Amino acid sequence: MVVPSLIQRKRDGGTLEPDEWRALVDGYVAGRIPDHQMSALLMAVVRRGLTNDELGALTDAMVASGDRLRRYRLNRPVLDKHSTGGVGDKVSLLLGPMVATCGVVVPIMAGRSLGHIGGTADKVESIPGFRTGLSLRETEAQLARIGCAMIGTTPEVAPADRKLYALRDVTGTVESIPLLATSIMSRKLAEGLDGLVLDVKTGSGAFLPQVDRALELARTMTDLGETRGCRTIALLTAMDRPLGRACGNALEVEEALQGLAGEGPQDLMEVTYALGSEMLVLAGVEPDLAAARRSLEASVNSGRALETLSKIIEAQGGDPGVIEDPGILPQADAVEVFRAPVGGTVAEVNPRIIGTAIVELGGGRQTMSDIINPGVGFVITVKPGDQVAARQPLASVFARDDAGIELGLNALRRAIVIGDHGGAALPLISHRVTAAGVEAM
Amino acid sequence: MVVPSLIQRKRDGGTLEPDEWRALVDGYVAGRIPDHQMSALLMAVVRRGLTNDELGALTDAMVASGDRLRRYRLNRPVLDKHSTGGVGDKVSLLLGPMVATCGVVVPIMAGRSLGHIGGTADKVESIPGFRTGLSLRETEAQLARIGCAMIGTTPEVAPADRKLYALRDVTGTVESIPLLATSIMSRKLAEGLDGLVLDVKTGSGAFLPQVDRALELARTMTDLGETRGCRTIALLTAMDRPLGRACGNALEVEEALQGLAGEGPQDLMEVTYALGSEMLVLAGVEPDLAAARRSLEASVNSGRALETLSKIIEAQGGDPGVIEDPGILPQADAVEVFRAPVGGTVAEVNPRIIGTAIVELGGGRQTMSDIINPGVGFVITVKPGDQVAARQPLASVFARDDAGIELGLNALRRAIVIGDHGGAALPLISHRVTAAGVEAM
Repeated sequence: MVVPSLIQRKRDGGTLEPDEWRALVDGYVAGRIPDHQMSALLMAVVRRGLTNDELGALTDAMVASGDRLRRYRLNRPVLDKHSTGGVGDKVSLLLGPMVATCGVVVPIMAGRSLGHIGGTADKVESIPGFRTGLSLRETEAQLARIGCAMIGTTPEVAPADRKLYALRDVTGTVESIPLLATSIMSRKLAEGLDGLVLDVKTGSGAFLPQVDRALELARTMTDLGETRGCRTIALLTAMDRPLGRACGNALEVEEALQGLAGEGPQDLMEVTYALGSEMLVLAGVEPDLAAARRSLEASVNSGRALETLSKIIEAQGGDPGVIEDPGILPQADAVEVFRAPVGGTVAEVNPRIIGTAIVELGGGRQTMSDIINPGVGFVITVKPGDQVAARQPLASVFARDDAGIELGLNALRRAIVIGDHGGAALPLISHRVTAAGVEAM
Repeated sequence: MVVPSLIQRKRDGGTLEPDEWRALVDGYVAGRIPDHQMSALLMAVVRRGLTNDELGALTDAMVASGDRLRRYRLNRPVLDKHSTGGVGDKVSLLLGPMVATCGVVVPIMAGRSLGHIGGTADKVESIPGFRTGLSLRETEAQLARIGCAMIGTTPEVAPADRKLYALRDVTGTVESIPLLATSIMSRKLAEGLDGLVLDVKTGSGAFLPQVDRALELARTMTDLGETRGCRTIALLTAMDRPLGRACGNALEVEEALQGLAGEGPQDLMEVTYALGSEMLVLAGVEPDLAAARRSLEASVNSGRALETLSKIIEAQGGDPGVIEDPGILPQADAVEVFRAPVGGTVAEVNPRIIGTAIVELGGGRQTMSDIINPGVGFVITVKPGDQVAARQPLASVFARDDAGIELGLNALRRAIVIGDHGGAALPLISHRVTAAGVEAM
């Protein structure tokens, strides 16, 4: 195999064969193909895209680069959910225990925070003692026993994706729909799933803000999943404002506990139920979305979902006492209320400004090696369209010190726009994408 | 400077500022910017191209990465010629001595053979003892004394180009007109030229076979030269057949000696006179092309051009006895005549097949580290359009052994196509490109 000629073929709009993708991925992981050739190839893919066959072949090669969950050890359907990421998105913390309670195995292989976008692995690690670094074999054992685990990305799974992603991050080759799709789907397919539900965010705080790009990513991933034997459905959900009220690691865990106790914010619960219902139907444990939703609501109302979460926390070394007393979560040293500077209608709560401020407060990462302060963040109690009076409390800032409070108040002044009318908020769930096509909702 | 954001800007069709190009080139040469970021940027340039300002800024930065010829040490106009490369192209060997004899300084900074395309530096090194590895300071001294030198690319000149070219070679980013233009022009501009004449080849054996691409490269380079204070003219010349008769290092030196003795093949002399006339007019030593041609012809007919070559060979450590006795050049061990398999009209003499066969015979390079056998090659005495009888000798193969002869005869069978009519050969010189525009000739 002559690598430059493969790069040239892709550069000039040609396609590479499955065995060529396999040789490229294997060679790159083994260190035989250097970074500079792979980054040129990736930039050519950014330009030329990938055919469906190439998408499948590259994804297969990435899955084959690592170990997989041994699905046969679990005698129940295995499904996962993946979100493309946003601000205040703590859905996985609720969804995993709820869906597992309903009889489905949910191996949540969670991401880390990066930039303004939060990551589930960082969120659960704010629970004292909680360990996300489980091996695949430990994960299998926990899934067989409890039905759910919340683990970080492990080097055993799709190591090609880990190495490729690190390269893309520094070579301007992240924003490519086929590369995003292969990256996400290679990790998910390594879980040996029966089905996958994707939460593709749209709006200013999303990784891909434009709805047409988000739809393209959703279609690419659903096609890729279905051709790989994994039933896949995507919902497009709004990320033009934070989801729920809490934004910040420990604050979001606390809100997730409230949600599992039946006291979650309406938008958070709605998205969680919608995604969970799709999972239960895909899994075949419920006949339709309405029945699935009733089953999920029962898991919350009965307290059984919270009980499942308690087992997960205990199994992964965390202190389950957090469920009775969220006060054991890391706390911010300084708290301050933000009040409406004028009366009017909330036109915008900008999620990107909030997410970026969390990073600046120390609660996120600019680079993957940053250490996170789990206690900091925001609780924002208003949504676009809400009427507010001057001086009405709209939000709280949680920070390490007075400088952090100042930074947080400043971010809120820019993020929360009050005007004459409510702006044009996106529908909470705007599209449903399946192998059969796209439905507006 | 955040490199990924610069890559992203270029990827998305934006432009980089001169100080950004400068920082990228300096950082890359210094090793602060890794190969994998540079190769992604180069692939983005392959896609997006460069604006005129970017072309200039990148070229300036590449020139500034190294040393330059100290033009002020030479009290005559300094001009060079550059060819984009072909098969049988020994023009520089004649042109340098001829133009220098007419009062112009000609620092021939020559390339190496690569793939099917031959390089002047390899050709002159087939003269016993000839040394192309002169330093810039040695080159200056020789130019002041003799008016011409034939040196290889030196690490002192545009080291950024050397490093970038090596990277492009393995990352599928060679075939980009702006990158080709900056590569060629950065090395030429480092010579501090008053003027430059470009021989841009077109046709199947050229680096860019299509005439529109060749014209685009010619226009890009003439614009770039002119904006950098170097008068630049390009001629498009035919490379749909070899130039002259001899193809192979020592064989081409011998043909160049014949040419300087007034016995060169017509096409070779025509291209040489055309390029040389442009140089003399650009240099201001002759008022027009007709006068310039007479002056060049006089340099040949008087024997003074051959005398200049003799001085160059002696100054660079070579044996000037080669001029009286070309038999001291490395000789092939086996020689065989190739005869026309049928009678008819020569429709094609495919230069790419010939050039590739020279590499296979050991007379060229697949990679820059290959060692060259200078004696091997072909002398092809027919041109497209010639009438030939069955069994008429058309060419000779020069090889190391019988296996080489077999390989060479096989290549000739494929390269020389005999048919009912002469095919559609390109005009020897098809276009003249100046800052004012393109003239068909």
